[in-house]
Amino acid sequence: MPAARPPIRDALVAAAFRLFLERGFEQTTVDDIVALAGVGRRSFFRYFPSKEDVVFPDHEGCLADMTAFLAASGPEHEPVRRVCDAARLVLRMYAENPAFSVQRYRLTRQVPGLRAYELSVVWRYERALAEYLRGRFAGRPDGTLRADVIAAAVVAAHNNALRSWLRSDGVGDAGAAVDHALAYVQTTYARPADAPAVRSGPAGPGPGPGGDVVVLVSRRDAPLWRVVQELETVLERP
Amino acid sequence: MPAARPPIRDALVAAAFRLFLERGFEQTTVDDIVALAGVGRRSFFRYFPSKEDVVFPDHEGCLADMTAFLAASGPEHEPVRRVCDAARLVLRMYAENPAFSVQRYRLTRQVPGLRAYELSVVWRYERALAEYLRGRFAGRPDGTLRADVIAAAVVAAHNNALRSWLRSDGVGDAGAAVDHALAYVQTTYARPADAPAVRSGPAGPGPGPGGDVVVLVSRRDAPLWRVVQELETVLERP
Repeated sequence: MPAARPPIRDALVAAAFRLFLERGFEQTTVDDIVALAGVGRRSFFRYFPSKEDVVFPDHEGCLADMTAFLAASGPEHEPVRRVCDAARLVLRMYAENPAFSVQRYRLTRQVPGLRAYELSVVWRYERALAEYLRGRFAGRPDGTLRADVIAAAVVAAHNNALRSWLRSDGVGDAGAAVDHALAYVQTTYARPADAPAVRSGPAGPGPGPGGDVVVLVSRRDAPLWRVVQELETVLERP
Repeated sequence: MPAARPPIRDALVAAAFRLFLERGFEQTTVDDIVALAGVGRRSFFRYFPSKEDVVFPDHEGCLADMTAFLAASGPEHEPVRRVCDAARLVLRMYAENPAFSVQRYRLTRQVPGLRAYELSVVWRYERALAEYLRGRFAGRPDGTLRADVIAAAVVAAHNNALRSWLRSDGVGDAGAAVDHALAYVQTTYARPADAPAVRSGPAGPGPGPGGDVVVLVSRRDAPLWRVVQELETVLERP
């Protein structure tokens, strides 16, 4: 969890957003912001390297939380589920303050410089997830490829749900929407946590060339990924 | 295919890269570039909106090619395969001039402003792929989610292979590496082009609660994705 934020920092963020919305981002200077917040220029730059940074005041903290969360993982954590849980830390930050998040979303759509800044932030989250997965997949065939693709899929799913929620002005359950989106990625890539609900066994010599036949018996209501995992095991493929 | 490029434009790119590598990107001005190329400032800005743009002189053309390629698609094109083919247009641009691509890759690693510019370019490619898939998946459950996730997966796979090739100084077969990476995405998401090689059929009432049982008979050498697709059909899931 992030530490308590200094009141001056919060005052700077509040002043900046009030001015950005009233006058526009480009038309607002750091001097305008510190004047409204009633502090000096040096206070601003103590907390924010640039005017862009004040628009995303919580991302550095969230990135640090995510990195710590991933570093605290053990072999007992299924890696794809773990990066999905890490992505939920970002959602939590947005959902803590829906009104602020919606304001920022609108502002970011209007200002190209903020759009570029946001892309670089998203890229850093994606790299944090990918680096963790690369570690977990080390030594596996196509380990870095799988890590990069899954990290990108997690970020895209998270952002698809997050942006729908922001476009709807923060109405509805953002957590449920993100859970649904991440479940799509987990179903595709994660190894199941519990035992498969299907039974299977190889049959005798089969028809035609290639010979060997697999007969898989599954309950119709078994989750598809469980059936697929069982198939992978039977077919002895990764 | 892009139209032939004006010689002045090529001369500006060559002069800019020579200076970027000799002096650094930040230390080179547009005035330096036009002086070396022997043209006026207005010529520079006729071709490039900014100093950053001269580093990526072919992306606008490539993005236009990609958009046209996707717009020329029909219902006969399997959508995931189609976006993979669209991504190959980007690889082709890089592979046309390996020495230039490797130089640019090194430069982009060193200059944060170019890194941000590159992220915005990659984002535009990804949006072009996602918009196409959103159209193809319109009306399907989770159509926009699937579109966004698959577009991100394609871009991540492409860039994983492209960057490995660039880091190895452009040695080896970039096309083969990208094909391998994109095949991973296609195997995960694409519908097969030909008929499944498995046979299956529902069985009578099965044991226990949930009742209904599926028996799937497959040759052991059938590709896993074909078995999974057949399972999806039998289980009546998307």
